[in-house]
This record gives sequence, structure tokens and C-alpha cells, in this order.
Amino acid sequence: MSDGTLEGWTDSEQAVARNAFDRAYSRSIDHLVLAIRNRSEQLSNAESVWALHDFLSIERHTIEGRFDFRVEGILFVFASLVKDQLLSLDELDGLDAEKLSKIAAMSRF
Amino acid sequence: MSDGTLEGWTDSEQAVARNAFDRAYSRSIDHLVLAIRNRSEQLSNAESVWALHDFLSIERHTIEGRFDFRVEGILFVFASLVKDQLLSLDELDGLDAEKLSKIAAMSRF
Repeated sequence: MSDGTLEGWTDSEQAVARNAFDRAYSRSIDHLVLAIRNRSEQLSNAESVWALHDFLSIERHTIEGRFDFRVEGILFVFASLVKDQLLSLDELDGLDAEKLSKIAAMSRF
Repeated sequence: MSDGTLEGWTDSEQAVARNAFDRAYSRSIDHLVLAIRNRSEQLSNAESVWALHDFLSIERHTIEGRFDFRVEGILFVFASLVKDQLLSLDELDGLDAEKLSKIAAMSRF
């Protein structure tokens, strides 16, 4: 999860973005925790344990790659989070209309 | 977990060894499953999830390295399993006296 500022965005837009980003990140971790708990109930042998390990390796790589808070690509990040229902468009209220419409359009792909 | 035969060991010693080895492997996996279930109950944030992933990476590496069923080093493998209470000396009954006494001696280090 990256920190930093979004160059060219107003302070209030940055606050909205940061807040939405952190919320989606938390949700993504919450989903992962539930999946781990479910899978750990089902563990029965070495293969199932190594499969859980592989699952976690992939999820960690995906989440760490996805939550990249930099101005390049941030609209795409938000669109993909909306598409995957980790964020609703409402939670991005406060961004300017052009950014919002780009995010909304991309989230439908 | 490796397969294979122990060159120079009698068939009956090999059967004892294989049986003991498999039993210790199962116990080791059972302990790991319990640890994962405990840890997954405690998960609360991303750091705790990544810590579980790191823990699994280390355990997998350790277990895969440890359970090496080849004649070179097999007495040491058994000694370390006895030392860590994944195996009792009784479960190695059937090996010749010299092997048993080497395992017993090394397991006390």
C-alpha cells in the first residue's frame, strides 16, 4: 500500500481519494481474512496447507500490486475497485466531474 | 516429502523407517494446521495476514527440507524428530541396535 500525494489534485480531492483508497484496501483485507478462515477450517493434509500458502502468495502479490496510490494510473485503480465492488462511486464524491466520469466509464469495462 | 529406498537397510528396517517417517510427517502437518487455525482467528489487519504468509513460507521451507528420506542423513533426521517429540524411540523399534543407539544419542544433543 503506497503513500504519497496526487500531484495536480486539490487538497480536498486528495482527501477523498485517500479515504476511498484506504477503505477499499481494508475491505480487500477483510475479504482475504474471511477466505483464510474458511480455508483453514478445511485443512486436512500437507497438500491443502501448501495450497493455502500458494493462495496467500498470489493474493499478497495481487493486493500489493493493485493498491498503488500514485497519480499515474490512480483513475484506473479506482475503476477496478468499483468494478470489483470494493468501492462504490458514491465514495468518490468530491472528485471533479471529469475524473468521476472517467472512473465510472472504465469501471464498466 | 521424499520417497525412495534406504540402501543397505533390510526390508523390515525400511518398513519401520518409512512408517515412522510418515507418522512424524503427519504430526508435523497436524501441528502446523493447528497453528494456522489459531493464527487465522487472530487476523485483524494486513500486517497480520502478511505475517501469516511469512510464517507459512518458513514452515513450508523447513518441513520440505527436514523430511528427506534418503540414506545419507536419515539417522540424523530421525534424531531431530525424536528430539522435537514428533517421534518416539519406540516407534523405531525394529531398526538394528546400532542405528537405534546412534539415533538415541544424537537426539539428546
